[in-house]
Amino acid sequence: MGRKILIVGGVAGGASAAARLRRLSEDDQIIMFERGPHVSFSNCCLPYHLSGTVAEADELVLMCPEKFLKQYRIEARVNNEVVSINRETKEVLVKNVLTGEEHYEAYDKLILSPGAKAIVPNIPGIEKANIFTVRNVVDIDKLNKYVNNIESKNVSVIGGGFIGVEVAENLKESGYNVTLIEAMPQIMRPFDYDMVQVLHKELYDHGVNLIVGDKVSSFEENTVVLESGKKIEAEAVVMAIGVTPETDLAVNAGLELGKTGAIKVDQNFMTNDKDIYAVGDAIEVYHSLTNSMTKLPLAGPAQKQARGVADHINGKPVLNRGFIGSSVIKVFNYNGASTGLNEGLIKALNMNINYDIVYVIPGDKVGLMPGCEEVHFKLIYEVPTGRILGAQAVGKGNVDKRVDIIATAIKFGATVEDLRDLELCYAPPFGTAKDVVNHAGYVASNLLNGAFKQVRETEVRGLIESGACIIDVREIHEYEQSHIIGAINIPLSEIRDRLDEIPKDKAIYLHCRSGQRSYNATLALQNLGFENVYNVSGGFLGLSFYEYFNDETTDRKRIVTDYNFA
Amino acid sequence: MGRKILIVGGVAGGASAAARLRRLSEDDQIIMFERGPHVSFSNCCLPYHLSGTVAEADELVLMCPEKFLKQYRIEARVNNEVVSINRETKEVLVKNVLTGEEHYEAYDKLILSPGAKAIVPNIPGIEKANIFTVRNVVDIDKLNKYVNNIESKNVSVIGGGFIGVEVAENLKESGYNVTLIEAMPQIMRPFDYDMVQVLHKELYDHGVNLIVGDKVSSFEENTVVLESGKKIEAEAVVMAIGVTPETDLAVNAGLELGKTGAIKVDQNFMTNDKDIYAVGDAIEVYHSLTNSMTKLPLAGPAQKQARGVADHINGKPVLNRGFIGSSVIKVFNYNGASTGLNEGLIKALNMNINYDIVYVIPGDKVGLMPGCEEVHFKLIYEVPTGRILGAQAVGKGNVDKRVDIIATAIKFGATVEDLRDLELCYAPPFGTAKDVVNHAGYVASNLLNGAFKQVRETEVRGLIESGACIIDVREIHEYEQSHIIGAINIPLSEIRDRLDEIPKDKAIYLHCRSGQRSYNATLALQNLGFENVYNVSGGFLGLSFYEYFNDETTDRKRIVTDYNFA
Repeated sequence: MGRKILIVGGVAGGASAAARLRRLSEDDQIIMFERGPHVSFSNCCLPYHLSGTVAEADELVLMCPEKFLKQYRIEARVNNEVVSINRETKEVLVKNVLTGEEHYEAYDKLILSPGAKAIVPNIPGIEKANIFTVRNVVDIDKLNKYVNNIESKNVSVIGGGFIGVEVAENLKESGYNVTLIEAMPQIMRPFDYDMVQVLHKELYDHGVNLIVGDKVSSFEENTVVLESGKKIEAEAVVMAIGVTPETDLAVNAGLELGKTGAIKVDQNFMTNDKDIYAVGDAIEVYHSLTNSMTKLPLAGPAQKQARGVADHINGKPVLNRGFIGSSVIKVFNYNGASTGLNEGLIKALNMNINYDIVYVIPGDKVGLMPGCEEVHFKLIYEVPTGRILGAQAVGKGNVDKRVDIIATAIKFGATVEDLRDLELCYAPPFGTAKDVVNHAGYVASNLLNGAFKQVRETEVRGLIESGACIIDVREIHEYEQSHIIGAINIPLSEIRDRLDEIPKDKAIYLHCRSGQRSYNATLALQNLGFENVYNVSGGFLGLSFYEYFNDETTDRKRIVTDYNFA
Repeated sequence: MGRKILIVGGVAGGASAAARLRRLSEDDQIIMFERGPHVSFSNCCLPYHLSGTVAEADELVLMCPEKFLKQYRIEARVNNEVVSINRETKEVLVKNVLTGEEHYEAYDKLILSPGAKAIVPNIPGIEKANIFTVRNVVDIDKLNKYVNNIESKNVSVIGGGFIGVEVAENLKESGYNVTLIEAMPQIMRPFDYDMVQVLHKELYDHGVNLIVGDKVSSFEENTVVLESGKKIEAEAVVMAIGVTPETDLAVNAGLELGKTGAIKVDQNFMTNDKDIYAVGDAIEVYHSLTNSMTKLPLAGPAQKQARGVADHINGKPVLNRGFIGSSVIKVFNYNGASTGLNEGLIKALNMNINYDIVYVIPGDKVGLMPGCEEVHFKLIYEVPTGRILGAQAVGKGNVDKRVDIIATAIKFGATVEDLRDLELCYAPPFGTAKDVVNHAGYVASNLLNGAFKQVRETEVRGLIESGACIIDVREIHEYEQSHIIGAINIPLSEIRDRLDEIPKDKAIYLHCRSGQRSYNATLALQNLGFENVYNVSGGFLGLSFYEYFNDETTDRKRIVTDYNFA
C-alpha cells in the first residue's frame, strides 16, 4: 500500500529526508543507502576530533542503523553503494562494498543526497605525499591516527576554506607544527580581504604558519614545494582546497546538471525526472541576492531541502525562497560570521549592483563588563535603496548574534533604516543599549543621506603616499603610543579651538581609534564650514588589522598597538 | 544665531539627545541639567558594583561635564535641579542643590528626560528599616558601603523585577544572606510563569532565599514582616518594587499625561507644548503589538527616542514605529531574554487575541561541543495567521541571540513559517544546523496546520489527577531514573510493536525528555490510526522545571532528574 522510497546518502540531507518522510507516513518503505560504514554522523564536527574536543571518533556517529530501524522504521544500509540508476525500470543497482555483491532495488521515489567530495588535483609528485582528505568519520579517524604517530609533528593543510582552517586550528591545538597554504591572497572567502585580516592575524598569533597567495607546485618526500620556491616539511598533507558535487550517478542516469556543474533541481528539489529528487552539496540552489544558481555546501540548507523533498513527496507545498548563505567559524579565540553578499562575491560575479559599506568596531557588551570584546562589523547595502545585501562580523565575542540578526533582516528585504529601529535585548553582560547592529544602521543611513563622507581603511596607504592631510583626533597619549606617520594630532577635545591648523582648501581625513570620535569631529568640522572632510571607517584599529598583514617588511607577530604606519 | 536647547536629566535619554544635537549643529547652545552629581553614568551597570564586577563606583560614570564641554561643547550642569517651567516666557527655574541658589534659564527648545523614581510605599514601621533604592551612582555607592559594614550580612530585596533580581544576584555573589521578596507569584514579568521557573530555581540553587506570592506587611527593627507571618531578618532593605515616571515638573507646567500616568508625547516625542519634548522612562510609548500606550523603562528605546527628538528639532523626519519591548537578564549562570507579548501580558491587558504557544528545549549548539546547553524556548504566535507575537528564552548559553532574531522578525510582521526558512549561521561551536528558532518555527507551523496536537506542561498535573493515559516514550533506563507516577513506559523504539498496549478509545498523552521523540511517536500513532494523541510540549524536562517550584511539600533544592511526580 505504501510507496518504496530510496535515499542515496545517509548523512545530513539523506537522514533528514528519511526522518521527515517517516513522520509524514507510516506506510512508506524507506531505505537509505550509504557507501561508508556510518549514517548520520556529524560532518561539521569532524575537525574537532583532531584536537580531542570530540575525544573518540565513534562519538561523531549520531545514529546507528539499528536505532534508525527501531525508532523510525527506516532501513539504513551502510557499506552499500548505489552504482547506477535505471530510470526506465525505476530501479537502482546496489553494491555491497564489503562483499562486492550487487542487487537491484526498485523505487517509487528516489532521493539523491550523495554530497560532495574533496578535490585532489594531480600535482606532480603527489604519489610521494601522505595525502588525506576529510569527508567522513573514517577519514578523520585515519588522519588522527596517522598524525599521532609521526615524529616531526609537521603537517600541512592545503586550502583555507572552512575545513582547512578548522583542521589547521584543531591540529595546532594538539601541538602539531601546522602550515596552512592558500593559493588566493586570503583564506575564508565568505569574508572580504579587509575583514579576514583579523583571522589571518589570529592564526599567526597562535603559531599556524599561514601562507597565502602561494600555490603548491609539487610534492617531494615529506615536503610540499610551493610556486614561490618555498619548501614546507610535511609528513602529512591534508587536501582541503574545495569540494566538488558527486554527480556521476546523476550524470550516468541522464539527469541534468546546471551551469555550476551541480545537479539541477526545480523549486521542489526535483530533478528532470519527476520521481527523482536531489538535495545537499550535490545540487545547485538559487541565491536570492545574486539571482543566480550557486553551489552552497552548508548543512542548514541541506536540512531544509531534505524537508522540502519529504513534504513534496507527501503532497505538501514547498516554500523555496532561495538561499543567501550564512556561515560562522571559530578560529582559536576569534569568531567570524557572515551572511549574504560580500564585496569579493559581488566582484567575482561581476554583479551590476551599486553598493556601499559600513565598517564599525563597537564593543559587544558594555565596556565595564568583564569579557567585553570589540566586534569588527561590516555591513554591505545597496545604493541608493539602502537594501541590506550582507554582513560580516569578526571578534572574540558574540558575533554570530549580530550576523543572524542581519540574515533575518535580509530575508524580509530590510533596509539600513530598519536596522536603526530594531529593538534588541539589552543588559550590560549581553550588549549595549545601541547594539552593534543599530550602530551600523545609523552610520549607513547617515552615509546614504549624505550626512558625511568616509574613506575606507583600504585607501589610507594611498592617502599617506600622496601626502594627504590626515588628522588623528585621538588624545595625545594615544597618538604618542602609535600613529600613522605624517598624521597631525588634534584631539576631538581640542579641535574646535585649533581650527586654524586645519587647511580649508584641501580634503581632510579624520580618524580616531575605531571611527566614533572622528565621526563627531567630521560632523563638527562640516558644520563649521569645512567642505571636504572624510571619516576613516574602522579608524586606527581597523587600519592596524588591515595593514598588519599587508606590510611584508615587518614582523607580523608584534601587537597591533605598537604599530606605526610608514 | 543658534538656538538655546535645555535638557532636563543627564543620563541615557538626556545625554544621547545632547550628543546628537551637537552632531547636527555647531550653532546651538546645549545645556543639560542634572539634579545629581553625575551625568552619563551607566544606569544598567549599577547593580554590578555590589559584586565588585565594577570595582569602583566612579567607574560607573562614563563622561564628566568637562569632557562633555571639551568634546561636544555641551554644558552639563550637575547638582542643578530644574524645579519649574514657565511655558509662557519659555524659561525654566534652576536650583543649585548644593547652594540653594536659583536662577532662570531661557530656552528655545526644552527636552525632558527626568527618568523614573523607585516606588517606596508607606508600609507600617518603614521608619525603622534601613531602606535603600537604586537609581544612581550615589545610591549604589551608599548601599554598597552600608552593607559592607553590617555584621549579620542579612539583606532583603523587595521586588523581583530587573533591578531587584540583579541587586539580589550581585549581593549574593558578594556573600550576603539575601532574601528576595516578590508579592506576585513570580519574579520578572517579561517571562511567563512557566518559563520563569528556571530562573526561580537558579536563584534557589545559588542560595538566594526567594519568596514569591507574599507581601511585606510591616517593618520591625532589622526585620521584614510578611503578610504570611514570616519574619525575615534584614539589616538593610533594598526597595525595588517598581518605578514611577518623574512627572511633577511636567504636570506643574500643565503638560499632559497619558492614561498610564506617564508624560504624553506625539509621534515625534513632542508634548502638548510644541517647544517641549520628553523621552525615556518618564514618557509612555506606543506598543505596536498591544496597540496601546505603555510605560517601557528601557535604555535602548530611551536612546532611540532621544535621537528622534534631536532629529525633529533639526527638521529631520522621525520614524516612530512604536515599541515591542526586548530585554535580557543574567541570573547567576542562566540568561533569560524576552521580546514582544507574553501570555501574562495578553491576559493582564485582556487582549482580544487568539494565540498558541510552542515550548521546545533544544541544545544551543551541537551536543558534542563543550558547553552545549539547553535553551528553554517559548514562541507565542497568533492563530490563525501565524503572526509572531513574542518569544522567551532561558538557558545557560546564547539565549539573547535567539530572542534578538525573533525581535527582528516581529518588526517585519513575520509568521511562524518565515522562521523555518531563516538561514542562520551554523558551525558546531555556535548552534545546530536546524537552529532553535528554525525548530520552533517548524513545530509552530505543524501545530498551525493541524499536523498534531499538544498539551502544555502546565496541564500535566491535572491529567495525572484525572487518571489520563500518559505514555513516557523515553528509554527504560531514563524512565527508571525518574518518571511521572502513573505514566506507562513504551519507548519510541518499541512503540510500533506494542500498539496493543495503547488504548484506542481514549486520549493519549505522550512525552519524552524534551518533546522531540514524543513528537515522532505522536505522528507515528496518528498515522497508525490513533485519533486522540497529544504531545506534551517541553516534555519531562519542561515539566520538571515547572513542577519543581509548584510542589510546596518537597525540598526544592533537589536536582530535577531525581524528580518523581505524584
